[in-house]
Amino acid sequence: MTDGPRRRRISVLGSTGSIGTSTVDLLKRIADDITVRALVGGQNAQLLAQQARELKAEWAVIHDETRYEELKALLDGSGVRVAAGRQAVIEAGALEADWTMAAITGAAGLAPTLEAVKNGNAVALANKEALVCAGDVMLQAVKDAGATLLPVDSEHNAIAQSLGDNDPASVEKIILTASGGPFRTATREEMAVATPEQALKHPTWSMGAKITIDSASMANKGLEVIEAARLFGLDEQQIDVLVHPQSAVHGMVRYKDGSFVAQMGSADMRIPISHTLAWPTRMETPCERLDFAKMGTMTFEEADETRFIPLRLARQVLRAGGMAATVFSAANEVAVEAFLDGRIRFLGIGELIDASLQAMPSNPEPQELDDIYEWDRRGRELAREQIARMGS
Amino acid sequence: MTDGPRRRRISVLGSTGSIGTSTVDLLKRIADDITVRALVGGQNAQLLAQQARELKAEWAVIHDETRYEELKALLDGSGVRVAAGRQAVIEAGALEADWTMAAITGAAGLAPTLEAVKNGNAVALANKEALVCAGDVMLQAVKDAGATLLPVDSEHNAIAQSLGDNDPASVEKIILTASGGPFRTATREEMAVATPEQALKHPTWSMGAKITIDSASMANKGLEVIEAARLFGLDEQQIDVLVHPQSAVHGMVRYKDGSFVAQMGSADMRIPISHTLAWPTRMETPCERLDFAKMGTMTFEEADETRFIPLRLARQVLRAGGMAATVFSAANEVAVEAFLDGRIRFLGIGELIDASLQAMPSNPEPQELDDIYEWDRRGRELAREQIARMGS
Repeated sequence: MTDGPRRRRISVLGSTGSIGTSTVDLLKRIADDITVRALVGGQNAQLLAQQARELKAEWAVIHDETRYEELKALLDGSGVRVAAGRQAVIEAGALEADWTMAAITGAAGLAPTLEAVKNGNAVALANKEALVCAGDVMLQAVKDAGATLLPVDSEHNAIAQSLGDNDPASVEKIILTASGGPFRTATREEMAVATPEQALKHPTWSMGAKITIDSASMANKGLEVIEAARLFGLDEQQIDVLVHPQSAVHGMVRYKDGSFVAQMGSADMRIPISHTLAWPTRMETPCERLDFAKMGTMTFEEADETRFIPLRLARQVLRAGGMAATVFSAANEVAVEAFLDGRIRFLGIGELIDASLQAMPSNPEPQELDDIYEWDRRGRELAREQIARMGS
Repeated sequence: MTDGPRRRRISVLGSTGSIGTSTVDLLKRIADDITVRALVGGQNAQLLAQQARELKAEWAVIHDETRYEELKALLDGSGVRVAAGRQAVIEAGALEADWTMAAITGAAGLAPTLEAVKNGNAVALANKEALVCAGDVMLQAVKDAGATLLPVDSEHNAIAQSLGDNDPASVEKIILTASGGPFRTATREEMAVATPEQALKHPTWSMGAKITIDSASMANKGLEVIEAARLFGLDEQQIDVLVHPQSAVHGMVRYKDGSFVAQMGSADMRIPISHTLAWPTRMETPCERLDFAKMGTMTFEEADETRFIPLRLARQVLRAGGMAATVFSAANEVAVEAFLDGRIRFLGIGELIDASLQAMPSNPEPQELDDIYEWDRRGRELAREQIARMGS
């Protein structure tokens, strides 16, 4: 037997979530060619242990420290090393890997993602906050380390695929598609009285509650506009949003010669994940191939920024720079929670973000992650104050 | 004043036709950066002279020798050198140029295109016969000279754009779109009695009579399937045809990971031409940008090979290899002429091609252009014999 090429070293930050399990599914298909350095989960010790055994991971790290003993017991005799807690998660991100999936959502994902970036290798980015809230800090780290950010979000991955090796200067616009969510054809009046049950009915993708509500309010598309601006170095005016209920076209690039290049595919996140995993080549996946004749029809509509206020606000935030996007994201999280709890109306989500942005006492440029954490906290505080004011 | 970079040397073979005039329109926009070596026209001395003056061409060459004096008089004092006749056209193709547009249609385009290829530089290919009839000869010359073929046809250009820098081995399929032509929804019975007037009504592109009839019978799509197989090194089963009446999506690539990448654009041939001209970068064009929200709907249907017989025959020809594609193309030309003259019915086009292919006495592999000319002649002869037989 001769030594083959060195195996690619892989880490998955957030392996037990939706993106994480899809990633693990793909990794199992190429298990012979990889060494899994770390799998990081939040709370689900059972699933994390199973993944770690299947992929023969060096480390299994769980964020929730109270699950440490459970995880340790589950992995007893497996050879997988076990750790727990916030610091262990950050250290897992710092483990040298050729490819790291950064899929820990929310503010908790920022520090481990930043550590992975500092390794200077490929980081598949599924954590929106990394670029929305901590864009400047993250992009500076990418530049300093010579890392490669590979977007996992279906829209941004579609743009990356549509860009290929084209000169960025030849891009006129990019177009992010949006399903339009459950309120695509609703009036403002209907949206005003919409219940959480109605808002949770997403037409094409099956996702968690937070992102489904974000999709209904188009706050999600707003976050994606901000993320796209940072990822691809574009102005707010260069990013269009197009409502496309069939969710077959995920994104398009319009070039200065009048050509549009688009990526399309079925609603299976393993497609964009596999693109980041095999990049710059491609790997075989079992995902369903779109059948255009069977689908028959694709439709497109303008995105209505008078009904989907968070989309309009996201553009405003992008123009403002500074900490506005962090406050936008934080206030939106508070607003979604309040809506799901029945404390505010559906249209209150946009109103709450707007009021929170207007209440910002200043809008400094962030220098480090601590600034982001601080403004994330302040954004939530501002939003809670606005809810209290609305309620009174 | 310092010397700038060397100007790109450009030739346009077929500058007075539809593709040629679109090419000249683009060249005028970059006139300061190029040196036009030769413009070659068929018969229109007036237009050729005007183009040659505008672009300060070194040579203006006209295929029709009887127009030599007219062209010479028109260019008197301009500094443009003038030549005429078949041999002069071939010599124009052989002039060293960095980029040559090969847009002389039919068999007349083969020899000058081959000369351009032999220069080993970029050749923008708008002549279908070069690859359909003379595929092996042309591709061997491309390989020997290290030339780059850049497809101009909107479908093939779309595939080239959708491929970008992807590894050809990652392609599962390519999909060529077809408008479906005027008989998209017609029954076989309606098609049987269709008049030339009905067949000449193309829904989206404005083109010459021959190619419009080819579009109605889908012989054109058949030729494109053959061309695509040669250009991209694919098997017949890897090339799908999808009817898409809006002609917005020009072509797609389906990758082995389940991603589709597509190129889209308005029905303006300057878009694909500019892509070949600016390749590997892109140039600004004034072409109308597609407005997806305004368009609203795109539809897709299976291509019906029982009604569009030439499409089925093209697949058969591709599997057969040898001279079958040359006979297909030649018999189709004879058939279209006979249909336009009222000598055969519309569905007779497919029947005539089929009968001509079946009447081939042998199917050798071509070695040189003369073999192609010989089988082009034989194909026409076979088709004429079949018409005589049908009529009797």
